[in-house]
Amino acid sequence: MSKGSWYELARMDTGKKNAFLGKLSKRLVESSDYILKENLKDLKSGKEKGLSNALLDRLKLDEDRIRGMAKGLNDIVALPDPVGKIDGMKRMPNGLLVGKMRTPIGSILIIYEARPNVTVDAFALCFKSGNSTILKGGSEAINSNRSLIKVIRDTLEECDIDPDVVQFIDTADRSVLNDLLRMDRYIDLVIPRGGEGLIRFVAENSTMPVIKHYKGVCHVYVDANSDLENALEIAINAKVQRPGVCNAMETLLVNRSIADRFLKMLKEGMDKHDVRLKGCEKTVKVLSGIERAVEDDWYTEYLDLILSVKVVEDIGEAIAHINKYGSHHSDAIVTNDYNNAMRFIQEVDSAAVYANASTRFTDGGEFGLGAEIGISTDKIHARGPMGLEELTSIKWIVFGSGQTR
Amino acid sequence: MSKGSWYELARMDTGKKNAFLGKLSKRLVESSDYILKENLKDLKSGKEKGLSNALLDRLKLDEDRIRGMAKGLNDIVALPDPVGKIDGMKRMPNGLLVGKMRTPIGSILIIYEARPNVTVDAFALCFKSGNSTILKGGSEAINSNRSLIKVIRDTLEECDIDPDVVQFIDTADRSVLNDLLRMDRYIDLVIPRGGEGLIRFVAENSTMPVIKHYKGVCHVYVDANSDLENALEIAINAKVQRPGVCNAMETLLVNRSIADRFLKMLKEGMDKHDVRLKGCEKTVKVLSGIERAVEDDWYTEYLDLILSVKVVEDIGEAIAHINKYGSHHSDAIVTNDYNNAMRFIQEVDSAAVYANASTRFTDGGEFGLGAEIGISTDKIHARGPMGLEELTSIKWIVFGSGQTR
Repeated sequence: MSKGSWYELARMDTGKKNAFLGKLSKRLVESSDYILKENLKDLKSGKEKGLSNALLDRLKLDEDRIRGMAKGLNDIVALPDPVGKIDGMKRMPNGLLVGKMRTPIGSILIIYEARPNVTVDAFALCFKSGNSTILKGGSEAINSNRSLIKVIRDTLEECDIDPDVVQFIDTADRSVLNDLLRMDRYIDLVIPRGGEGLIRFVAENSTMPVIKHYKGVCHVYVDANSDLENALEIAINAKVQRPGVCNAMETLLVNRSIADRFLKMLKEGMDKHDVRLKGCEKTVKVLSGIERAVEDDWYTEYLDLILSVKVVEDIGEAIAHINKYGSHHSDAIVTNDYNNAMRFIQEVDSAAVYANASTRFTDGGEFGLGAEIGISTDKIHARGPMGLEELTSIKWIVFGSGQTR
Repeated sequence: MSKGSWYELARMDTGKKNAFLGKLSKRLVESSDYILKENLKDLKSGKEKGLSNALLDRLKLDEDRIRGMAKGLNDIVALPDPVGKIDGMKRMPNGLLVGKMRTPIGSILIIYEARPNVTVDAFALCFKSGNSTILKGGSEAINSNRSLIKVIRDTLEECDIDPDVVQFIDTADRSVLNDLLRMDRYIDLVIPRGGEGLIRFVAENSTMPVIKHYKGVCHVYVDANSDLENALEIAINAKVQRPGVCNAMETLLVNRSIADRFLKMLKEGMDKHDVRLKGCEKTVKVLSGIERAVEDDWYTEYLDLILSVKVVEDIGEAIAHINKYGSHHSDAIVTNDYNNAMRFIQEVDSAAVYANASTRFTDGGEFGLGAEIGISTDKIHARGPMGLEELTSIKWIVFGSGQTR
């Protein structure tokens, strides 16, 4: 990629970027036949290779899913452009005006698995925030991705934008990743989206900064003084509304003083949703017949209708458990005690910490970011949902009148 | 390091942190004899090993330098504590209150060369922002560093703070670095302070995020419509006030239309400060007798009284030159043309971009950050001067009233 095409994009005005994204939304729908034909090739070879049904479902596109991508683009049009926003401009004693202006980062490598929708979605977020995008999708989706990239590049040309602002690594050869991950002269940031193995591989081998999206071992702690009906509602929502995602609850902690009563309510409630409970020693004494949790379970992201349950002495033990066994993703307390709510918010070391709400809200849309490219479990650059602003950097801008030091 | 000692520090109130830093400032001065005795050992073995005078000077401590460190600590006491600051708190349509709270990052590894003052300075900035510090200093300073760490740890104990919030890698063996750089389970961030070789080694071998402080190939561009007297003043300041630092100017660009007049003024001005000029083809036609710059010179950080000089057609060529040959550190335009000033600020891709001021202002103190741990040339997490806030992360905090999704 030439730096020239990035500089053009970096300073492109919002109107031109939005006009392109709007046109792309249309062109995607108009190109449905072509895209679906290419997608069929991937589905066919995926079936031949014996991919699981879950994987084939992620791979599959249809008219509805293409309309979903097109709608996603229009949503991104509606978001404010982060580029050029100036923060904290102040006048220094020597008369210099000093502030920070948001700028694009440069060129962002997105490495993902067999979800063709990521191709459009990730590109559009990077584009709106003024970044060049290099896309390396899963080999199972190569025909689908190639067709989507063709539509994107054709539309860029139609809008008089250098199509090289998006690059597609058009090979199913995984070894190319090793070379890509050492191209720090050309790539500013890597965002791997996929399983833990992929992310770990990228983090260990990249010479560029990597923003990681690891697993979510999320907790709900039900405090002594709490509304047990509401606690149950939050627990059920956090566990069953969408168990396969990173912000779903994996472990419930309950204060000893209300454990007898709440655990029975919990069992009854979770039974209705076929959630299998695994309890600590104290839990199994109250709920005889449920499985005993082992040490490893406290670290486990089930992504399934399974829940670890532990009775704790007090809020201190709850916080210590979460900071030790959790993955620092999303954790909630249910309490009517003001001081305990504030203490939990302060002391739990997670990307999102809740008082009296479900962990399921950890999401760019729910936090007011509009869209998200992922949920960072890192502490560097971005933490929690990453929206457009998290895809930018800053530069210091200084207006002087001849000052020297 | 136990996570426990970090959690204690992460939630320590500002008063206790400041009381400790103030006491440390006193204890350092009181321990001068001990510290200077240990420093003498390093100086002696440094001389035996044949270290250069410049290196020995950096290594050397005296009463004045110890008082300087002590004063630095009091300056850090006076800075606002970034931890716990809440940004952008808003009420979402479902009633959730969502905001971002600044939190410490965790544990920060500082790798540095033979400057013992970094031991105190870097530790104090990390401590005030709630982070544990792991210090790996240059082997030449090991006795000095060991004595400073002893004073720090003794004062921590005196103030009832777990001394393990600071760890000193007490070995002169450089191979230990390879192990340290793979300890991503225990270390959250690495900041190497030193030469380009060290930084590159750390960036390539660390499995943790690294914030890099590379060289500064900084420019001043003198535009067609500009006050030439002021342009000369800025150029001289940027070059000679402290030529050995990263924000000093290395290349001057001058608009063709004023080149004849300005280059003669420049030669006369720079001659007074013994600055050697290297010019492009057009420059040497005006200033006969000066050296001809070669391609490599445009990329070079001299850190010395040498200056590359180039005549450019217009502001477009100046910006293109800076973005191609510069190191994206600090660059300035001198102009009376409003539109050119605004264009330069927008289009130059550097950590600090100036209109009508010297590049020498790129500094935490000058930008109002109080102190700095360095000047990041990265675009991820921090760019430009890094103060206390740049040593923190955030967490999303959510106050609900029973919301589920």
